[in-house]
Amino acid sequence: MSRLDSFIRRMTAQRDILDHVCAEVAKMEGPVVELGLGNGRTFHHLRERLPGRRIVAFDRALAAHASSIPEAGNLVLGEIRETASRFIGIDAALVHADIGTGYEDRDAVTSTWLPDLIARLLRVGGIAVSGTPLDHPQLQRLAPPPSVPADRYFISRRV
Amino acid sequence: MSRLDSFIRRMTAQRDILDHVCAEVAKMEGPVVELGLGNGRTFHHLRERLPGRRIVAFDRALAAHASSIPEAGNLVLGEIRETASRFIGIDAALVHADIGTGYEDRDAVTSTWLPDLIARLLRVGGIAVSGTPLDHPQLQRLAPPPSVPADRYFISRRV
Ligand SMILES: C[S@@+](CC[C@H](N)C(=O)[O-])C[C@H]1O[C@@H](n2cnc3c(N)ncnc32)[C@H](O)[C@@H]1O
Ligand code: NI
Ligand code: NI
Repeated sequence: MSRLDSFIRRMTAQRDILDHVCAEVAKMEGPVVELGLGNGRTFHHLRERLPGRRIVAFDRALAAHASSIPEAGNLVLGEIRETASRFIGIDAALVHADIGTGYEDRDAVTSTWLPDLIARLLRVGGIAVSGTPLDHPQLQRLAPPPSVPADRYFISRRV
Repeated sequence: MSRLDSFIRRMTAQRDILDHVCAEVAKMEGPVVELGLGNGRTFHHLRERLPGRRIVAFDRALAAHASSIPEAGNLVLGEIRETASRFIGIDAALVHADIGTGYEDRDAVTSTWLPDLIARLLRVGGIAVSGTPLDHPQLQRLAPPPSVPADRYFISRRV
């Protein structure tokens, strides 16, 4: 499969999963955390699906489209491993992480710290959505909605 | 519509249009020109759909995934307006351009030089596929395949 085909499938899975969980997140208190703002397309989508909700977005550097930049205070620049650690205990209702690189060795390093960070950002009952699997005792894997094949994008609940 | 939704639709339109025209391009002589290599996903797709065909890719700077970098001689870095001008007369069978920025003013500037550049890169009968409309007397707009709504992604033939 070409990388374009697989990218379209991954973005579609991301969107379908976020739409699926946003219905539940809308009924839960707590901010949303976006790890990897990038171009800001997912941030824009979340802002539309969860109007009025605080969304704190993280990236190494600002590279987002002008229409998709969080207001001051909700944009945190620097290495996520360090910057997001300062928000541990924020009791997020939703953490979304799309920080895979397409390089297995780099993603393997990320998987050594990302699941624990996400578990500590979430409130109990809160939801994690991620492009990479999150192996952690406090993150219980949930089944994706029917449109999403297994192992394309991942959902877990903080227990 | 969120920028994520519209991005998924645009990428899907791009893929469907390229798949549609590649059947015809496969029967035509001439290289492929990729204006805007980016992450290299479309380059990867074209290489899969047109095995063995020369694909010359242009970008301001190299930002592609390691799996999607053209061999030396087929990667041209710098401002496309200048670098691709040196390839006028190459008689390309297909030119693909995905260099829209999401900023209307910048894209308006691009549309002052891109259509003429593409017309001069293509052979007569060659095909242009673009994320922005190409208004030019030598580029005849073609209807997209049925899966693609009008005005999402554009096809023209060099007359
Ligand atoms: C795939 S992009 C995210 C795309 C985003 N979902 C969108 O809609 O545009 C990943 C982003 O995460 C950032 N990133 C990845 N790993 C990071 C890290 N360890 N610290 C900070 N930023 C990181 C990259 O700079 C990049 O902008
Ligand atoms: Ni469910
Ligand atoms: Ni046709």
